[in-house]
Amino acid sequence: MKVLSTIKKEFDVAIIGSGTGGYPGAIYLAQKGLKVAVIEENLTGGECTNYGCVPSKAIYQFAESIRTLKNISANSSYEWEKLIEWADNSVKGVRNGIESLFDSYDNIAYFKGKGVLKAKNKISIIEENNSEIDAKNVILATGTDPSKIPVADFDKKGIISNREVFSLKEKPNSMLIVGGGVIGVELANMFSSLGIQTYLVELKERILPFLDKDVSQAIKGYLVEKGVKVMERTSLKGVSKVSENYQVLLSNDEKLEVDKVIISTGRSPKTKNIGLENLGIKIDERGFIKVNEKLETNASGIYATGDVVGGPLLAHKAIIESISAAKWISENNGFHVDYYSIPQVIFSGLEIAWIGMGENELNSKGINYEKIKLPIYYLAAVRIRNERRSFIKLLLDKESKKIYGIEIVAPHASEVISSYLPLYLNKITIEEASKITYPHLTVSESIRDIAEYLLGEPIHMIKK
Amino acid sequence: MKVLSTIKKEFDVAIIGSGTGGYPGAIYLAQKGLKVAVIEENLTGGECTNYGCVPSKAIYQFAESIRTLKNISANSSYEWEKLIEWADNSVKGVRNGIESLFDSYDNIAYFKGKGVLKAKNKISIIEENNSEIDAKNVILATGTDPSKIPVADFDKKGIISNREVFSLKEKPNSMLIVGGGVIGVELANMFSSLGIQTYLVELKERILPFLDKDVSQAIKGYLVEKGVKVMERTSLKGVSKVSENYQVLLSNDEKLEVDKVIISTGRSPKTKNIGLENLGIKIDERGFIKVNEKLETNASGIYATGDVVGGPLLAHKAIIESISAAKWISENNGFHVDYYSIPQVIFSGLEIAWIGMGENELNSKGINYEKIKLPIYYLAAVRIRNERRSFIKLLLDKESKKIYGIEIVAPHASEVISSYLPLYLNKITIEEASKITYPHLTVSESIRDIAEYLLGEPIHMIKK
Repeated sequence: MKVLSTIKKEFDVAIIGSGTGGYPGAIYLAQKGLKVAVIEENLTGGECTNYGCVPSKAIYQFAESIRTLKNISANSSYEWEKLIEWADNSVKGVRNGIESLFDSYDNIAYFKGKGVLKAKNKISIIEENNSEIDAKNVILATGTDPSKIPVADFDKKGIISNREVFSLKEKPNSMLIVGGGVIGVELANMFSSLGIQTYLVELKERILPFLDKDVSQAIKGYLVEKGVKVMERTSLKGVSKVSENYQVLLSNDEKLEVDKVIISTGRSPKTKNIGLENLGIKIDERGFIKVNEKLETNASGIYATGDVVGGPLLAHKAIIESISAAKWISENNGFHVDYYSIPQVIFSGLEIAWIGMGENELNSKGINYEKIKLPIYYLAAVRIRNERRSFIKLLLDKESKKIYGIEIVAPHASEVISSYLPLYLNKITIEEASKITYPHLTVSESIRDIAEYLLGEPIHMIKK
Repeated sequence: MKVLSTIKKEFDVAIIGSGTGGYPGAIYLAQKGLKVAVIEENLTGGECTNYGCVPSKAIYQFAESIRTLKNISANSSYEWEKLIEWADNSVKGVRNGIESLFDSYDNIAYFKGKGVLKAKNKISIIEENNSEIDAKNVILATGTDPSKIPVADFDKKGIISNREVFSLKEKPNSMLIVGGGVIGVELANMFSSLGIQTYLVELKERILPFLDKDVSQAIKGYLVEKGVKVMERTSLKGVSKVSENYQVLLSNDEKLEVDKVIISTGRSPKTKNIGLENLGIKIDERGFIKVNEKLETNASGIYATGDVVGGPLLAHKAIIESISAAKWISENNGFHVDYYSIPQVIFSGLEIAWIGMGENELNSKGINYEKIKLPIYYLAAVRIRNERRSFIKLLLDKESKKIYGIEIVAPHASEVISSYLPLYLNKITIEEASKITYPHLTVSESIRDIAEYLLGEPIHMIKK
């Protein structure tokens, strides 16, 4: 694709970062006829495309197939290099797709380099031949980096993060994953399916500590059954290199020798050295950029979107923020992102998806709620996949039956949550859902069962 | 489970058939306190549970994994018997589930035998010790049989239907599938993935002739690429047994020798010898029972539901009819099944799901429409699965933008169609959908793209 540096100097909008918080807004603004500069210091598409969602799900869908085979003790063999090549081709395909989008707009200029705010309307691009552009508005979409932990500095070889783990040249025999959050759990699932001995340590009392306890427990049970060694209330005390491997000391005094140590303890916003101080842009105590409901920082005309503003660090949240900010800029006609209606997904084999508030949050806010928890192994779509731990949970207001939250632990939960969304958004009533012919032999047909249950007419439930 | 025969004689409702057109209504009526007789001559759960959806999808999900492995030339080996056992266990699990539901209601009596209408309120049950019961209302849910074709009589060994194909003791090397409809296409996909040489013949000019041409073409391309020999405008002229195999003559004079011949040319309603004539119950020219909007036949108090009334022969259509009929009986408070809002699904690897009218139907009705066809290989969730032929098609009224139909050809289309339903049902507007954060790296997130496209603001589309 064309990479511009010094041809055009004046822009309506400059977007720093071409990831999911940046590129959708760039396209939107270009469609509205504005002159747009996109500045990217790394690979087009950002973290999600290059080091996150895309390569991880390319490997995941393959790993899931290996897992399915094991249900009937089928054998399989594959070449690690081909799997990594598959993931890499997926990444390149998505990345090229974004670059082709940029290329198709004459009014988008793409700059390769690090964008730094110099003054109001002025951005410096640090690259081979330093250049400067003017822009009336700016969107900061710089994203996050993997957080570092003191006891184990990244060495990019054996102590690594999501940045390296999906492109390992050789298949590790074993790995320790530090941090039982979303990334840690996803990695533990997929790499254990691929035949790698996997250890997962989590500092807090349970993996996925931000989710309800029954969700954590279901996933822990699932992971343990498939061979992951899960250690909760455990931290990393030290790592030392022993020939090609790493010797690891844990807080429970256990010693392990593993090929790789993956750190997935959190994310740090990329807000350093981008010139925030030149415009007095405020960040919060964790370093995330503060924005108002229009995604504008305290500096007028400077917006921020995606991971760098905090909240759930999700590609789809970044996409919708990116478009919203673009609308505010182009037409002063954005929308307030409804943060309570953002579904979250963990691609963990036995997948997890949720929306709204869980029991943890409801309890901490002192909100009374009614809980409906439906084990859904009776569903044929769940049974044929042997996912005994599957369930769906609805949390509702006792009186009004307003839905506070929905949690799905089931095969394909990542797709199924979108079918539940209208219920949560109150666009489809329980009464209506009970009459909708959701297709058979899907997980989505559980909606009808849930609706029947709420109406006091549950078909698929043993009478007590 | 308890099987009753002569204990109870008088019932509020007798349901003939325990499949998806029968059992949900039975449970509903029992919940309302009515005395219910369920009469089943074959296996509990009917066609879907025992010979259709359940065993086929149990094998399908495994076959899909084998197919995924081939994307990176991975090898696999499995034991056929274990796969069949897996399917059989799935069937037993679902069947036992239905029987446990029945068992948990004191007011459901289960009769093993063939139910025959004798007179108003009187049903004869033909079994070991013939018995008779009285019922104020009846639901006929007898279902369908595989249609026979003159040139190839079923022999239950090598010339078979869905009744035998999911429980074959040995893995066939080759099979001819006669009929390129839903069942034929599903079988061709799954058995070719499992390494069986598969031939698919369709009498009409294209497979899936009831769908739009571009859908048929996409699926044909997909099947051919994976090794299925698809022969359209072709019929079976004769079959003869040659030692253990079958020699087949086709209308194009081609001769094949195959291990199995699967007939999937259609379904015939089971309306013979069930006493319809005793009450003068009307059937249509194809033998399906005629019912009114309340699912009642012309004989007052005699209802019919599921496959035996025709329409789309789908489990979820049967379920909803079963519940609706039960509501009409128990409270005269059923609902009119919205037949234009029944999603249909083909589990064909590259899956197909649709709702409403396609181009075929719109053209034949002379309705002007606007077509929006979005190839969705750009979506990461599609790309990582290498499904290049994926697309989503919306057919709308040019003026009002009312959606006439939605067609999805994509991975996971079976789950994804439920996310599109609210758009079709006009419960979520295009404007709203464009602001919803459908989760990233799913196929469902295409909804937002479709919405943006309809609003004239397509992010993921190369500018022309």
